[in-house]
Amino acid sequence: MLTKNNTPVIGKQLDKVAQTIEEHLVVRNKDIERATTELQRAGGKMLRPSFLLIFAALGDTSKQSEEQLISLAASVEVLHMATLIHDDIVDDSPMRRGIQTVQSKYGKDIAVYTGDLLFTVYFELLASSGDLGDFIKVNSKAMKKILLGELDQMHTRFNQEITMLDYFRSISGKTAELFSLACREGAHFGYCPPNVEKLATRIGTNIGLAFQVLDDILDYSATRKDLKKPVLEDISEGVYTSPLILGMQKNREAFCPFLDKKEPLTVEESDNLRKLVIESGGLDAAKELAQRLTQKALDDIDHLPKGKAQKLLLKLTKELLKRTY
Amino acid sequence: MLTKNNTPVIGKQLDKVAQTIEEHLVVRNKDIERATTELQRAGGKMLRPSFLLIFAALGDTSKQSEEQLISLAASVEVLHMATLIHDDIVDDSPMRRGIQTVQSKYGKDIAVYTGDLLFTVYFELLASSGDLGDFIKVNSKAMKKILLGELDQMHTRFNQEITMLDYFRSISGKTAELFSLACREGAHFGYCPPNVEKLATRIGTNIGLAFQVLDDILDYSATRKDLKKPVLEDISEGVYTSPLILGMQKNREAFCPFLDKKEPLTVEESDNLRKLVIESGGLDAAKELAQRLTQKALDDIDHLPKGKAQKLLLKLTKELLKRTY
Repeated sequence: MLTKNNTPVIGKQLDKVAQTIEEHLVVRNKDIERATTELQRAGGKMLRPSFLLIFAALGDTSKQSEEQLISLAASVEVLHMATLIHDDIVDDSPMRRGIQTVQSKYGKDIAVYTGDLLFTVYFELLASSGDLGDFIKVNSKAMKKILLGELDQMHTRFNQEITMLDYFRSISGKTAELFSLACREGAHFGYCPPNVEKLATRIGTNIGLAFQVLDDILDYSATRKDLKKPVLEDISEGVYTSPLILGMQKNREAFCPFLDKKEPLTVEESDNLRKLVIESGGLDAAKELAQRLTQKALDDIDHLPKGKAQKLLLKLTKELLKRTY
Repeated sequence: MLTKNNTPVIGKQLDKVAQTIEEHLVVRNKDIERATTELQRAGGKMLRPSFLLIFAALGDTSKQSEEQLISLAASVEVLHMATLIHDDIVDDSPMRRGIQTVQSKYGKDIAVYTGDLLFTVYFELLASSGDLGDFIKVNSKAMKKILLGELDQMHTRFNQEITMLDYFRSISGKTAELFSLACREGAHFGYCPPNVEKLATRIGTNIGLAFQVLDDILDYSATRKDLKKPVLEDISEGVYTSPLILGMQKNREAFCPFLDKKEPLTVEESDNLRKLVIESGGLDAAKELAQRLTQKALDDIDHLPKGKAQKLLLKLTKELLKRTY
């Protein structure tokens, strides 16, 4: 994880991003303020702002406005937080980042409006970050793509015929789009040359895809304590992720009893399903997939201008891959 | 209500607004598309786009872009729709515009994402409506004020000490801000002179406030059939509106048994509460208030440039007042 100490290139800026976000979370309604501030302080990894700032650091620093970059970096994190809160309503998730979700602690009503408020803060941060010109359209398209990805995921719930194509379509929006936006926006407002902005967009997509696959893998290899959220809760919500889908391709029948069950899985059933995913090769196939996607990103990073920022990007991307093994 | 026939000034443009909205509601997920399209077709009054277009018609038509005005008019209606859908989740409302709410027909999950999708369509319409310059900040501030108004209303729920000041604070955001934005935006992008834009902002606020008070009054004077939504459902949700607050100022004790009740009111109790609000003078006081607010708007409208658009605005505003008596 990124901290001020291990990332001298962007560490101070990340602090400013966190401060900017907190300033924008101040509202009259103290329940809402507490809910958003708790989520913020519970320490998201701030990956999206980090990628934005690293790509900006690759550009022409003499032309950049640090204030603009901080606002934009804050905006991508806030958009991420907004989607998390609404996802947790839809998923009825009890935990997020090791603390209770807004929905489970404050109830559905506050969770709906808190997410909405964060969407407006996202918009506010964009609007106040100086003239974005046509790039405002890139933002609106990205936001729509993210939402459509969420809808795709909801639509394929409990669909035991789900393919890897369905899966990729959903995570391309739901997860990869925001990483891609962050990287591209950093390159753009960091005054990188057009070819770097193009690479940034693709690197962001591949990192985002890899990140999601790794997140899926964690569900099958980590304990509840490591993960700071319940293990395999996706299954009882009908959300089938890459290790499961890849496992089912080998031995569909064995999985049916787990998926046909209407209630949440017991601890024993979770353990058995985890074993099945491992034995069927689903977990290994997902790991290979994550590695392939990360390698694509690393290959592209290799073509970026060399220097501290590029080194940091390389390090961060490698760490993202390492985190499951 | 506005139709193409009775509003030759903006009728054709309103059709284009409806068409633009429908085009933006097309998504892969057909449940969501159906949910939003049904709400759109159930015929909102399209008041906010109408006010936007009328104020634009007061300006310099030679400088205007009709396409831009249509996009902006669509954006205010879509933002309105987004807030309606999320309000209905928070209020657990069964009916809206004479049809089932998205929440009650499709469930909470779809309702959350459908509202979110409409927020992104709002953003998309703004982003695609040409360079808005600094006016994008006016939009982001308005959106935040609307959300904060919703939060204020939620915060004062079941508070029997609620004052008219609390009430005004909430409806200034929740309802008046969007009317004000619509009028101001119409004047601005219609190339009205600055004094007209300033009047537009104030007229929008007063119309919005009057509109909300009238909406409250309807709850106490209309039948379920007229209103296309359940009568007095606000009470059991702890939302106390102007006729009730004004009535309580006269005779607080008489109201307590109704407000202390934890379950929804029976039909008989609703009737008794309605009588109490009337007898205590709450309904008349609310009607007076609505009339004062409308009169303020009418006085300002009197100072606008004369012509067809100003006449239409006068007519529409008077009709808004007439609808309760």
